[in-house]
Formats: sequence, structure tokens, C-alpha cells
Amino acid sequence: MTIDPAAPPPRPPGRPRSREADEAILAAALDLLIERGGGATSIEQIARRAGVTRATVYRRFPNLTGLLVRAIEWEYRNTTPEALSWPDVPAMVRDWARHLSEPRSRRLVRRLYGTVDDLPELLRAYDAAYGSHRGRAVRNTLEHASAAGELPLHCDPETLQLVLSGAALQHLAAYPDTTAAQDVEAYFLAVLRQVGFPSPPPAHSTPPRRSTSR
Amino acid sequence: MTIDPAAPPPRPPGRPRSREADEAILAAALDLLIERGGGATSIEQIARRAGVTRATVYRRFPNLTGLLVRAIEWEYRNTTPEALSWPDVPAMVRDWARHLSEPRSRRLVRRLYGTVDDLPELLRAYDAAYGSHRGRAVRNTLEHASAAGELPLHCDPETLQLVLSGAALQHLAAYPDTTAAQDVEAYFLAVLRQVGFPSPPPAHSTPPRRSTSR
Repeated sequence: MTIDPAAPPPRPPGRPRSREADEAILAAALDLLIERGGGATSIEQIARRAGVTRATVYRRFPNLTGLLVRAIEWEYRNTTPEALSWPDVPAMVRDWARHLSEPRSRRLVRRLYGTVDDLPELLRAYDAAYGSHRGRAVRNTLEHASAAGELPLHCDPETLQLVLSGAALQHLAAYPDTTAAQDVEAYFLAVLRQVGFPSPPPAHSTPPRRSTSR
Repeated sequence: MTIDPAAPPPRPPGRPRSREADEAILAAALDLLIERGGGATSIEQIARRAGVTRATVYRRFPNLTGLLVRAIEWEYRNTTPEALSWPDVPAMVRDWARHLSEPRSRRLVRRLYGTVDDLPELLRAYDAAYGSHRGRAVRNTLEHASAAGELPLHCDPETLQLVLSGAALQHLAAYPDTTAAQDVEAYFLAVLRQVGFPSPPPAHSTPPRRSTSR
């Protein structure tokens, strides 16, 4: 047997267990961030929850804030541009409502805003990994709608985006985490009606049913 | 000298010092709540900041949460209905902007929303002492404007109030605490333009200056 010099080096034996430990630590950090908030989470608690020693955590992550930042990036690692692209404003609102009806996302985002004065790195990490992508996609959708004449003339996409983001924050702060996606969608549509945006036509324009009696 | 049985009993000698200690404790609790948040504040820290012993704090207040609730009530003890009454929507927005440009209020309200999952009593105390009064006054102003035909026909006061509250939250979360009142006012007016609410007429309708050359 000869050694092929072009072949990749053999995988170090500890590697897969390493990745497993990394993911256990990241998952534990994220869970604790959501449950208790960044200010009430410690490396000690994360290690215990992940089933590793504190030394293992410190060997892999620089410090608590750095670990929480990595955990947030990890949570949103599968965000794709395709998932954040909508044909029109109602489709955008439907998807935003679906996102805003996930209890885990709601609690996470509340935690990030809740520690913005103490750990601004966390909200910044969320923005870089997810929030800014969603924001850009919302802006694109509103700008296309504006260019297509679908928005009222007195609306500008930038401020309208801000109104919708404010409405989302307001929902996070004041409505229960058990709100169904369709109720969040109705909430967004009510906000859009304030700016004069037409709600979709009611569903009574279905074609008459064909008789099946003969 | 006779004793008048109808006279009020003599003031207990410790009373004025008592009130002083109470206020020192409440002020310390509020400062720490604003600086560090409810979750990172302890009776120990409050006692030290107020210059009293922990035993003194415990003798006067039931527990940490109860003390923070009392501190919030104390902060807003001078709220009067007159301070929350405006002749029209632009005056309301101007006053809201002034309130939203006070760094101390901004940080306090962020702290209350930031601990809503851990200490919901704090946001509830704020609402009871202040938020609900301001909210009712905003609703009254919007309803009067609606009845007077000053709002666009597609607006309803309840949802419009929610839009404005969301915009205020968004400002708290995303704009610097050094924003001037007139910039916050411009922000609210931009939001109102999205709903088609007319901004006040520009100030170029001042009467022509009288010539002073002779």
C-alpha cells in the first residue's frame, strides 16, 4: 500500500467528539440564554448543562460573552437568502408572523433586547447573523411594492419598515408567546391598514362549485 | 396645662428620620435598577448605596421585588392627569417626544421590558403608576382627533395607538439615549406621515416683516 500525497490528511481521532462537545456547549449556552438571560448565565452552568467540565468550555471558547455570541451565530447558521425572499407584502407579512409566533425565537429576541445595555454584543451578533438579513429582505419587498405602486403614495419604504419593526417589538413585549401565526398575521394586517395598505380581497370570489349531483 | 384629648398624638420622634431613610433606600433601589437591571440588583447593594444596614432595609420593605415595585411607584408619585392631557395629536407627539428624550426614563423603561420574563411585577408596577395613565391619555387624544375628522378615514384609534407605542419601543431599542426631543418628535411625525396624518403646516406663513428703515 502506498501513500497518496494528494489525499487529505487522516482525520484527527478526537475530531468528531470535539464537534459533538462544541455543539453540546453551544446548545446549552443558547438554552440558558433563552431561559435566564445573558446576565444570569455562567460558564459553570453552561458546562454542567452540556455535561462537560469548565476547563473544556474554556479550552474551546474565549469567555462567556464570546461563547454566547458563537451560540447565537450557531442558532442562525442555516439562514439562507431564499428563506428571506417574498413575492409581495402580504407574503412577507405572513412569513414574519410565522417567525414571530415561534415561542423560542420570541424569548431569545426579548433576551437580546433585554441585555442591550449590558451585553450589546449579543444583539449585534443576532443582527449580523439574522436580523440584518431579514431587515434587508423586508426593505427590498417594500421598495418593490413602492415601485410597483402598491403602497399608498404617502408611504416611504424606510419609515414603513420602521413602523413594522416597531409593531413586531410591541407584539414581543405585550402579547403572549402562545399567539398563533394567523393572529400575528391579523395583527400586522391591522397595522398595515393604518397606513392605508389594502388588505387582500376576501376569499368569497371563489368560482361557483360545479354540481356533482349528476 | 391640660391635655386636649382631641389633639393629634405627638409625632413619634423617629418619624422624620424614618422617611429620610425610606427615601434614601427607594432612590438607591431605583438608581441600581436603572444602572444594572432588576436581576443584577441585591438588597445588599441597595443598603450600601443608601448608607443603611441590610436589617434597616428588611425592616421597611418586604423583599427585593417588593422594594423595586415601591421604588417605581415612588418615581412616578407626582404624575398628574393635567400633565397627560393634550389639545391635539401634534401636541401629544411633542410631549411624548420630550418624555422619550429623557435618558433616565429611557433606561428605566428598557430595564423594565428587559426583565419582563423574570420580574413581570416591575413592568406591571410601571404600567399601574404611569404607563396606563399615559396610554389612556394617548387613546383619548386619538379618539377626539378621530371624532373631529382629523385622522385619515382608514385609521382606527386603537391600532394607531399600538403603532405609536411600537414606534416608541423601537426608538428606545435602536436610537441613542442622547437623541434630542426635537429629533424624537421628527421621528414620530415621520411615523404619522406613514398613516397619512398631515404634518403641521410649515412655518413660512409668518406675516411679512414691517420695514423699520423709516
